[in-house]
Formats: sequence, C-alpha cells, structure tokens
Amino acid sequence: MASSILSDCSSCATSRLLPLRRALLPPLPRFRPILASASRRPLLVAAPLPLLPPARGMASLSAAASSADSATISADACAKVIDGKLAAKQIREEIAIEIAKMKDAIGVVPGLAVILVGSRKDSQTYVRNKKKACEAAGIKSYEVNLPEDTSEDEVLKHIATFNGDPSVHGILVQLPLPHHMNDENILNAVSIEKDVDGFHPLNIGRLAMQGRDPFFVPCTPKGCMELLHRYGVEIKGKRAVVIGRSNIVGMPAALLLQKANATVSIVHSKTKNPEEITRQADIVIAAVGVANLVRGSWIKPGAAIIDVGINPVDDPESPRGYRLVGDVCYEEASKVAGAITPVPGGVGPMTIAMLLSNTLESAKRIHNFK
Amino acid sequence: MASSILSDCSSCATSRLLPLRRALLPPLPRFRPILASASRRPLLVAAPLPLLPPARGMASLSAAASSADSATISADACAKVIDGKLAAKQIREEIAIEIAKMKDAIGVVPGLAVILVGSRKDSQTYVRNKKKACEAAGIKSYEVNLPEDTSEDEVLKHIATFNGDPSVHGILVQLPLPHHMNDENILNAVSIEKDVDGFHPLNIGRLAMQGRDPFFVPCTPKGCMELLHRYGVEIKGKRAVVIGRSNIVGMPAALLLQKANATVSIVHSKTKNPEEITRQADIVIAAVGVANLVRGSWIKPGAAIIDVGINPVDDPESPRGYRLVGDVCYEEASKVAGAITPVPGGVGPMTIAMLLSNTLESAKRIHNFK
Repeated sequence: MASSILSDCSSCATSRLLPLRRALLPPLPRFRPILASASRRPLLVAAPLPLLPPARGMASLSAAASSADSATISADACAKVIDGKLAAKQIREEIAIEIAKMKDAIGVVPGLAVILVGSRKDSQTYVRNKKKACEAAGIKSYEVNLPEDTSEDEVLKHIATFNGDPSVHGILVQLPLPHHMNDENILNAVSIEKDVDGFHPLNIGRLAMQGRDPFFVPCTPKGCMELLHRYGVEIKGKRAVVIGRSNIVGMPAALLLQKANATVSIVHSKTKNPEEITRQADIVIAAVGVANLVRGSWIKPGAAIIDVGINPVDDPESPRGYRLVGDVCYEEASKVAGAITPVPGGVGPMTIAMLLSNTLESAKRIHNFK
Repeated sequence: MASSILSDCSSCATSRLLPLRRALLPPLPRFRPILASASRRPLLVAAPLPLLPPARGMASLSAAASSADSATISADACAKVIDGKLAAKQIREEIAIEIAKMKDAIGVVPGLAVILVGSRKDSQTYVRNKKKACEAAGIKSYEVNLPEDTSEDEVLKHIATFNGDPSVHGILVQLPLPHHMNDENILNAVSIEKDVDGFHPLNIGRLAMQGRDPFFVPCTPKGCMELLHRYGVEIKGKRAVVIGRSNIVGMPAALLLQKANATVSIVHSKTKNPEEITRQADIVIAAVGVANLVRGSWIKPGAAIIDVGINPVDDPESPRGYRLVGDVCYEEASKVAGAITPVPGGVGPMTIAMLLSNTLESAKRIHNFK
C-alpha cells in the first residue's frame, strides 16, 4: 500500500491532498451566459489571477519538492485554486434562469435523451448525476436503459426515434459501449443537430477549421476553456501544451486553444521529452489518465494548470481504500503554478454543466430563441 | 528594386537561388503505390538522408549567414535537396500504370471534374496544368468554365450533376471563388465520396480523430508527408513545427504529422517567439505565404525543411522581372538543414500528383478495385 502512495507522487510520500483553499479564491462575479462559440472571449471574467508567483529557480524548486512534507507544502503553496465546483454551480444556476425564460416565452423546455447500454456501475452513476443535474436546471430527461447484450440495430432504432422527436434537443450515448458494438456507427447515427457531446467527426472538422464553428463544443474541453476564461487566464499568444490526444478531450482541447490563438503543442506517449516541452507552457491541459504524471519540475513558474485526469490511487487512510488524484502532482505543481484545478472539484463538475449548456444551446438554435 | 531583393533575404543580398543540386540526390528507387491512409508508413523509402550535417554551433551559423555570398554559400551548403519534381514525376508514372491496369481489368478509368468560375489567369493556368496531368496519366477530365457573374445556384447545379455522374470520381471547385459566392456552401455541396481536395469538414474531422481515416487527405499536405516518407525522414517521436494554420495546408499538415506520431507545435501570426519554437523542430513545414520568413537562424542543424510557400519577389535580372521564393530563406537554411525542398520544384509539383492519386483512390474505392 505504501508503495502505491509513493508511486502516485513519490517525492512527497507523506503528504496529503491539501484542503482546497477556497478562502483564497475571489468570489466569482454574477454569472452571465457561457460560451456560444468556440473562439469567443470570456463573457465573464473573474478577478485575474496573478500568473507569476514569486520567482524561484528550478534548482530550489526541485530541492523543495524532494524534501516536502504537508506543512512545508502548505506554507509554500502559491497557486490560486481554479474552483470548478463553484464555477459549475454558477453555470447550472444561470442555465436554469435561461430555461425558465425560454419556457415563459415560447413554452418549450430543452430535452436531453441518454442511452445507456449495460450495467457498468460508473456509467450508471454518471447517468444518474446527469439526470439530477438536468432536473435541477429544468431540462427534461429521457432515458433508455438497455441490457448488455442488446444488438447494435436496437440501439440505432432508439437513436432514430430520438432524432425524430422534436421534444429532444440533445442525444447522448453513454460510453463505453459493449465490445460487440461499433462505436463509430452508433455515434455517427446521432443527428449532428442533437450531438450535444460534440463527438461527430463533422463537428470536430468544423472545430479544427478557421472560419467555421462547431455545432457543439465537446463538453470536457469546453469546460477547460470556460475555466481559463472565467479565471482571467490570457490565452492569445501564450504557449499551451496539451498532454494527451484523445478524441474526447486532448485533441479537441488543443483545437480550442489553437482557435483562441495560443501556440499549441501536443504531448503524447511517443513524445521523447515531455517534461522539457511542458515546462515551456504558460497553459497546460493534462488529459492522459496517468496518476500524478506531471511533476512540479514539469511546470513553468506561474503557469495555469488544468488537470482533467481523475485517477484512483490506493489510500489505506481513506474509508474507501482509495482516493482520486489527477494527472498532475498537485502538491508539487501548486507550489510552482500560478493557477491550478484541484482533483476532485476542478474540471469534473464542469463536464455535466457544459452538457446542460450544449443542450440549452441546441434547443435555442432549433427554436430560434435568442 | 534592390530593397525588394534585400527584403526577401537580407543577409545575402547578392546571392541567387542556388541551382538545384540534383546530382547530390540519390535516384529514387522504382516507384510503388502511394499513401492509401494518412497514418501508413512509406511504401517506398529512398536511401535515407543523413539528418545530421557536420556539427555547427548557432554562433558560427549566424556569423556565416551574415557574411554570406554566393560562393561561400555554395561551399557551405550541406542540406540534401528533396526533389519534388522528380518524386512527382515518378508518382504520376506509377498512377498511369495503375490506371492502365484498372482499365484492362474492369474497363473503367478515373474521371476528374473541375469547375472554374471567372477568368483569373493563375486559376486558368492551374486548371490547364491539372488537365494536362490528368490526360498524361489516363484520367478523364471534365471541365466547366463559368463566367465571373455566375450565380451560386448555377454552380451548385453543376456540382449536383457531377455528384450523380458515375464516370466522375473526383470533383474539384477551383478556388478562390468570386466574392459573391459562399465558399462553404459550395464546397459542402461536393459529395464526400468525390471530395478529392479533402476540404470537407467531415473529412478534416476524420483526419483529426484517432482511429478514423479521412476519405481523402488534402493534396498539398499529403504531398509534404509523401516527400518526408520518400526521403526517409523519420517522423515518429520527432519534434515538428508547422508554420501557418490555413484550412488547406497548415492545419491538415499538423494533423497528419500528429497522426504519424510526431510531437507537433503550430506557429502562427499570434505566436510570440516563432524563431525559438521553430529552432526546436526536427521537421519544419512552412506554409504561411511570406517570402523568406524562415531564416537560417530559425533552423535546428540537421532538420528536414518542407517549404510550401511560393512567393514572387522582384528580380530585375529575371526576364519576367520577378522570381519565386519560398517561405524559407533557402540560401541560409540549406546550410543548416539536413534536407530541404527547393522553391520552385519542391512541394509545388506534388500537389497535382496527389490530386491524381486521390482521384485514382476514389475510383478504386467506388468500383471496389484493389
């Protein structure tokens, strides 16, 4: 067990995740509507975070990291916490207000259909959370639960029904699908106008191209960008590194940063010197699914760090026997970065908020409601 | 006039483009079929070029560049020339052989339709060259020439006719279109199965995504990759910088390098330190349309340089009053790089060869001919 803890952040074996220092975070101002287009500037900007902490050389940094314990880390830490839980709460409240207005004006509420195949516990939990968030915001939920051995045709039939149902504005097929199904066939069957996940290749193509906008920005990358915007992190002209190149997070996140005029590099499993490249970045989005991969020594002082990873690591002191950590070693990175998302409580809560946002956007577009 | 020449490569004002040193280039071995998928390894690899010229520090490099004249440049030059004219010729010959086989086997030849609106001289020349190349390879050419004031609907009607014509396997709308037309509407009207230019957003999306392949790889970026493959330039794990992010070249070139497992950074007009970033690259694709932007000091010794730019600069000694140069200052870069494409005679000839290749690929796919 000890080695498991060691392996997740080896230079600070005795340290714990710091309590999120919410007291340090300026309250976000009153909420305004969120990202309508991939390239827009933030509509709401919190008090800008100081991007340059007191200057420290890499040598003193690595010495500090290797001798760290909870107390010294706490004293050293200087990164502002990017509080995704708080931002997501505000976004959900704002969406609820918009939906109430829409209902009053045209008698329509957005509808989101979720198709779940099989009985994976994590998928069930995620779908349940989506449903609750929809209800709280005033979005009508439609749910289809199908057994693990359902045929692909059966799933396609449900998608066709939702495609044709005018009360459904967003359709989401919960991934992963059982192995006997072809993900590509199924995801491509979702009407591009209702693909609130934004995973359709036509949508990704429009995201990649200058002068085009996607129908929907994929939820997790959209959440990352929204956090950067809301916390006043300047993107234009900055160096950005995205670690990981998945179709769902890394690749679209890189395209979004590029659209916002950052100079973007993508680091992946075949990259020979990820540490050196990451250290050049003013903005890092880590989305690779490896616990604590990004150490303090990878971070440029003052950089903004968005940690998408949610990785369980053994923890005998936790009642569950494990705790969740990100792709970034928070204890080390928070001493070097200018701003950082915690795990949990960073990007995680933003994903569902962005799903609600995309569903509202879809309903507005379909009903031409501004 | 002198200032025009100076401005195009200021440290070597008296120098001329070196004659292309074809004698240094190993003959390409017998040709084999070209890129079928974006991510495949080269089917044909010429004798690998040495990627590391004799070691030289940046200091001695910049001293050499600032005191350069034609003679010293010629003596210093060490980069191998990546001969696009030769490679394109071989590719066109190979395509001709493939088409003859197809005709013998199933009685079908590929057909390429080109729609030209207006009377721009450069477009007319390009279309004429395409037609000649098609004829030489055995591809049937269809051409529609429309006056400048043609309506968008009229163009769309022609596209619809070609979409439905089984003897047409590729449709190309010559850009730029007159200002009164919406490029997006027109390009989107081309059937995805016949979009041999590969500009459709659905195609770009499939290019961006892991686990998907585009129907067609856009011609110029495909030509760049083909040159790297044919000249034995290793891509996997290498640092690559793409300068420029156009929908037609820079962006798809970056996606292709990424698919081939390079670590890719995109440099653009908002990048603050393009020289520093470019100097980290083992592979540079320059596609920004600025004469001689990339100086010798931007180049990592031994790097492979693919220059997509074709820019006219004043030249009173030329009968036409101008000469064509690339985005890279060839005189300087060829002393530092390991391999470099000349302008003209580098990427240029590859674009039409790749268009023929895409048209053949389309005909094979439609007729299920392997």
